[in-house]
Amino acid sequence: MKAILVIADGLGGRPSDGPNGSCLQAAATPTLDALASRGALGLLDPIGPGIRPGSDTAHLSILGYNPSSVYTGRGAFECLGIGMDVACGDVCFRANFATVEPWDDALPVVTDRRAGRIETGQAELAAALHAVALKAAPDVRFEFAPSTEHRGALILRGPGLSRHVSENDPHVEASADDTEENREAARLQRSRPLHDDEAARRTATIVNEIARRSYEAWREHPVNLDREAHGKHPANVLLLRGASELPKLEPIGETYGVRGAVIAGGALYRGVALAAGMTSLSCPGATGGLDTDLTAKATAAIDALEDHGLIFVHIKGTDNAGHDGDGEAKRRFIERIDAEFFARLIARIDLEEVHLAFTGDHTTPIRFGDHAPDPVPVMFVGPNVMPDGCTRFDERAAGAGGLGRFSGQVLPMLLGYCDRSPKFGS
Amino acid sequence: MKAILVIADGLGGRPSDGPNGSCLQAAATPTLDALASRGALGLLDPIGPGIRPGSDTAHLSILGYNPSSVYTGRGAFECLGIGMDVACGDVCFRANFATVEPWDDALPVVTDRRAGRIETGQAELAAALHAVALKAAPDVRFEFAPSTEHRGALILRGPGLSRHVSENDPHVEASADDTEENREAARLQRSRPLHDDEAARRTATIVNEIARRSYEAWREHPVNLDREAHGKHPANVLLLRGASELPKLEPIGETYGVRGAVIAGGALYRGVALAAGMTSLSCPGATGGLDTDLTAKATAAIDALEDHGLIFVHIKGTDNAGHDGDGEAKRRFIERIDAEFFARLIARIDLEEVHLAFTGDHTTPIRFGDHAPDPVPVMFVGPNVMPDGCTRFDERAAGAGGLGRFSGQVLPMLLGYCDRSPKFGS
Repeated sequence: MKAILVIADGLGGRPSDGPNGSCLQAAATPTLDALASRGALGLLDPIGPGIRPGSDTAHLSILGYNPSSVYTGRGAFECLGIGMDVACGDVCFRANFATVEPWDDALPVVTDRRAGRIETGQAELAAALHAVALKAAPDVRFEFAPSTEHRGALILRGPGLSRHVSENDPHVEASADDTEENREAARLQRSRPLHDDEAARRTATIVNEIARRSYEAWREHPVNLDREAHGKHPANVLLLRGASELPKLEPIGETYGVRGAVIAGGALYRGVALAAGMTSLSCPGATGGLDTDLTAKATAAIDALEDHGLIFVHIKGTDNAGHDGDGEAKRRFIERIDAEFFARLIARIDLEEVHLAFTGDHTTPIRFGDHAPDPVPVMFVGPNVMPDGCTRFDERAAGAGGLGRFSGQVLPMLLGYCDRSPKFGS
Repeated sequence: MKAILVIADGLGGRPSDGPNGSCLQAAATPTLDALASRGALGLLDPIGPGIRPGSDTAHLSILGYNPSSVYTGRGAFECLGIGMDVACGDVCFRANFATVEPWDDALPVVTDRRAGRIETGQAELAAALHAVALKAAPDVRFEFAPSTEHRGALILRGPGLSRHVSENDPHVEASADDTEENREAARLQRSRPLHDDEAARRTATIVNEIARRSYEAWREHPVNLDREAHGKHPANVLLLRGASELPKLEPIGETYGVRGAVIAGGALYRGVALAAGMTSLSCPGATGGLDTDLTAKATAAIDALEDHGLIFVHIKGTDNAGHDGDGEAKRRFIERIDAEFFARLIARIDLEEVHLAFTGDHTTPIRFGDHAPDPVPVMFVGPNVMPDGCTRFDERAAGAGGLGRFSGQVLPMLLGYCDRSPKFGS
């Protein structure tokens, strides 16, 4: 008995999403409705009632881990997700190429946190940084990897390091003619130790040294001279945030005796799945955006069932539309999930042999434009699921669903239907 | 206001149990349906969503304790349940009379983990073991008690002991003409310390010495000579597993100010109830099997209401039929629970004076034949229970029940309806 877990990021919504209620209510979803008629619905609190989930914490909870005890920050999952090799004890950061004003004595003002969404030259900049960054602390292994546009990740590995340091990202930008108050707020931050110990003090010093060396290595780098010649913002400093360590998670394979695979366009979701012991499958066309190829993802999932007992498919576009406040785009994307992903999927799998779970990692209501703490509809389908009489998949149907309301644990429940759960007790 | 908690072990099931859905759905249960019409239903996660319960952990959780913090193993409850006197700090084991090949230097192969389900002579064997086992560690009190067939329990009491030892039971058997691989797997195991401390090392040594002494005491015991003369497997070694300590549980009487009594055929369930401070009532005819006398159990419960505020009745047969994969037997047994137990019970109690809860400790679906993590239907009836409009008691009705879905805590809720809960806060 095999399992497919599908998470549409930010799937749920609110009655204020549009004239026909939530985007999910407004969407025509004949395939999902047919699945609802075979299965059972419920309301999922991704982490717990009233808790507004992050993407990382929600995924941990849905996969059966307790984010309150294992989560230290997003950096480690980003590092894993972009293909870096992360070991326990490494201090991991999310990183941005950014633009600062000339750095004299005082910390410089950040004028563009994304360095004009730089799209070329990141590898050359990374190489230049690597050439000088080692000198920041000779016994610390330094690894920086760019991912997409201005994004990247950094790993520090060595003795006497700590994740308990503040970030150097001011999270706001200011221009030369901004108010003095705004300009002060937009200055590059000095990383500070958050614990009173030598490791935290040392790590903060290294973060500050890396920022300084990134500026020295990049200020007159050919990539930036070329950008400036074309009127683009130079990528002349590295912002570091989300200092964290990889949590030690009991691998899915050991707990449930099943090989798991993830199909996701977004690095974070691959990272969480990899941390849980799954394999990441490539899927050309999976972009992590509204333009993703949903048919390709369905095909990849079907193919992967051949030699995996669990496939986790992450679909990001719903959340992007929610963050953009674009209800029409979200509704249309949900209809594409129904027609391109699920219609293809169920045409090719035998629902007497496969259990399927579909949910979101949180709601992203249109007017709020961010993750909300409201519960999310969840649906299970398969031979061991007791049908509950629902004939529609949306927030309201889920509220009347036969599975009631529960927190996280979607994957343990799904693999429980597949008779793969370990017994607690005797 | 008095309370009756009835647990039918492994009560719930799945749509795949049989042609008419789950055994509970297929069963004709007019009494339970009438109770449903007066009361309220819900879905119970015995321990938590997605957690596959053992019998011991599920009962602890249903009684209101947190198995994650109090559970160390099944042995202590088995010891209590068969009438042994267990103190805090005792190391308790479940024990089997078993058959091994001749024990020379190497650990012998176990050929029958149940010694032909030995039915007579256990007391004589126990006496012979007691005569030699004390010498294994003079300052340790050793108490072994046989229970039914090949089963028994062992307590070690004394200074410097630890429950952190592995068992000597290989959990598989092999015959003389088995493959070498199978024979190796079936060798008696050497108990090992699981913690790196003197107490664990000492306890493992004692376990190994007891196994050796059981072999010496029993190999030519008249009981075994007689068994072998009749072509039966000799009971020539003691298997020990489930090393555990009795958890310190706040007694029901202290928390709720109520005298509790348990009526159960199975030792484990009596053991958990005794650990919770209840009294065990004898009920001739309660076998813990499909042949149990359900009318006698109803009568015993009714009689016990006289001088107890809480009666906990455990009915085991539903689980036995589930483990056997016999859906028809399970359906018929559920119909017997309805007609013989509940019909008699409600004819004799006043449901304006008594609150009643009925549930299972887990599901035991027919095709899986073991405990599944799916939620279980639960029903409360009594003057303080808000009726929810349900008119049927089964998994699907429970999914639409007015009590929603919750984890464990059935006894605290039941005694809450009886106005017996302590207040948390002020």
